[in-house]
Amino acid sequence: MVLEEIDEAGIIAVIRGMVEQAPGVTVPIGDDAAGFRFSGEEVLLTTDSVYEGVHFRLEHFNLDDVGWKAAAAGVSDIAAMGGEPSCALVSLGLAGPPSIEQVKLLFGGLTGLLSLFDCPLVGGDVCRSGSGLSVTVTVAGEAGPGGPIRRGGSRVDDLIGVTGNLGDSIAGLFLLERGPDESAEEFPGLIRAHLRPVPQVEAGVALAGSGVTSMEDVSDGLALDLCHICDESGLGCEIRESSIPVSEELARLSENDGLDPIESALSGGEDYQLLFTVESGYIGRIQDDLTNRGIKVSLLGEMKEQVDGCRMVREDGDAVDLRGIGYDHFSG
Amino acid sequence: MVLEEIDEAGIIAVIRGMVEQAPGVTVPIGDDAAGFRFSGEEVLLTTDSVYEGVHFRLEHFNLDDVGWKAAAAGVSDIAAMGGEPSCALVSLGLAGPPSIEQVKLLFGGLTGLLSLFDCPLVGGDVCRSGSGLSVTVTVAGEAGPGGPIRRGGSRVDDLIGVTGNLGDSIAGLFLLERGPDESAEEFPGLIRAHLRPVPQVEAGVALAGSGVTSMEDVSDGLALDLCHICDESGLGCEIRESSIPVSEELARLSENDGLDPIESALSGGEDYQLLFTVESGYIGRIQDDLTNRGIKVSLLGEMKEQVDGCRMVREDGDAVDLRGIGYDHFSG
Repeated sequence: MVLEEIDEAGIIAVIRGMVEQAPGVTVPIGDDAAGFRFSGEEVLLTTDSVYEGVHFRLEHFNLDDVGWKAAAAGVSDIAAMGGEPSCALVSLGLAGPPSIEQVKLLFGGLTGLLSLFDCPLVGGDVCRSGSGLSVTVTVAGEAGPGGPIRRGGSRVDDLIGVTGNLGDSIAGLFLLERGPDESAEEFPGLIRAHLRPVPQVEAGVALAGSGVTSMEDVSDGLALDLCHICDESGLGCEIRESSIPVSEELARLSENDGLDPIESALSGGEDYQLLFTVESGYIGRIQDDLTNRGIKVSLLGEMKEQVDGCRMVREDGDAVDLRGIGYDHFSG
Repeated sequence: MVLEEIDEAGIIAVIRGMVEQAPGVTVPIGDDAAGFRFSGEEVLLTTDSVYEGVHFRLEHFNLDDVGWKAAAAGVSDIAAMGGEPSCALVSLGLAGPPSIEQVKLLFGGLTGLLSLFDCPLVGGDVCRSGSGLSVTVTVAGEAGPGGPIRRGGSRVDDLIGVTGNLGDSIAGLFLLERGPDESAEEFPGLIRAHLRPVPQVEAGVALAGSGVTSMEDVSDGLALDLCHICDESGLGCEIRESSIPVSEELARLSENDGLDPIESALSGGEDYQLLFTVESGYIGRIQDDLTNRGIKVSLLGEMKEQVDGCRMVREDGDAVDLRGIGYDHFSG
């Protein structure tokens, strides 16, 4: 099937046709800048790029998965502040002229994720990139009454908690890279965790309103993200290996294939769960609240003095340094 | 000289060290999202990417020029709405690990442009790109009392005006591509127009407060940008070739090298001047106001009915269709 290629004006026309009127939008797509009326004066802003060949390969991702995941990363950053996304912009770099169908697929995934949170796409730009596909999503949002929650507010003896399970996303990538076989059908949750992550906006708002002292989304792996909280708070931490939440699918895949599920959790990243710290007196209410919302929450350990370092205690009692584990784009 | 390469955490540390505290910033660089307190609830948002090999070549651009120009494009979009930039974010894609010096140079140019407008850099991300350098800048701003000014507000018989001169940027690129010779020193304004454009924020705010009906920055060339205003307003236009403002340097270079300065103005783009339409009764006040501010303003022609098309009348009386002239990333 040969698809007709469209030019820059055509791409923008297709996108404009896909975007509906939404409350708050004062200047929609198609002008020099977008206009949005927020409910207050403090706005949260984040921008994230994904590049073909670095963040995704088109052997594993459909274009709608690329759009979805690019938007999810930005929304998750807003969730990590205890905020809700308000509107989004996208800057799209393309290797060459796309077909209408390709534009619709990519933006269908992108607006599909955003529509889960009533977050309209309000603007952006499109141009040729140097090589492959790249998608940069900017999300603007607002914090609820308790927020924004920063990384640097933890205190010694605060408990460390996390929503959901960790390590599923990197395990999904492992399955996708191994190629199609029946095992992929056995682990739909892992594949979905990698291609279609859902940011924890509801949990973030609930946590921000419940007295958490620090919060961050798990995007670089539990080890590195926890070190961020320690560094910004000027503290150390100790977590227990046995407390790290692992899904049934990840446990089963790891058993089958000799993988280490804890390594997936510590260094995999892109789980987009929320890592937080809170005074112990508040944790019972948080557990009740999140459980009532159907959101899993696990307690990993406690914040320590900086001199204690950032450590994980294994089941045999050995302590492992968490520093240096996790994804850095320009090291190792 | 071998420069030490730094990792992702190191890059962010260098950038944090370069950014000063600024009013309005509630969550600075280094968290999941930035926080900024605007003066009102309506915010203007724009995002633009530049890619190595498409928007610039590192033979012609130093890294500080790249940073400057990436920021200028976003600020110019805010100026085109009659707004002032409030804060900016950057997403940086790098082919490989940079040196501290390279990070400082790129961000020095970027924050250099932003500091002209008291616009703090509040956040962003950095990662590996698929190939060369790419820089995506998001700018948030606020419109003054008259704005935001959109592209679609023109009426028949409105006058069409433009600030500054057109065509200088593409002529500067011509000189850079031709390589170093004494002629580059004869045309410093053209080189500067291409490498170090300055967005017309003051003019935009003044114009928005003076009753302009449409406004846009000249980023794709006068012809295409004027067609945008016509299309969004459901109108046509007629401009006079003899009224298109050309700098002394562009006129001299064109004379020397047999170039057509009008073609540079119509299709060159990246001039970042402001194109606007206004009822004729307001134009005298606008001319006085901009002249008092030291800003050149030229009247190009008038808005017409849609059926009249978008035309330029040459000095010999022939009419040229403006459609199809200008830069589209995926055509031609």
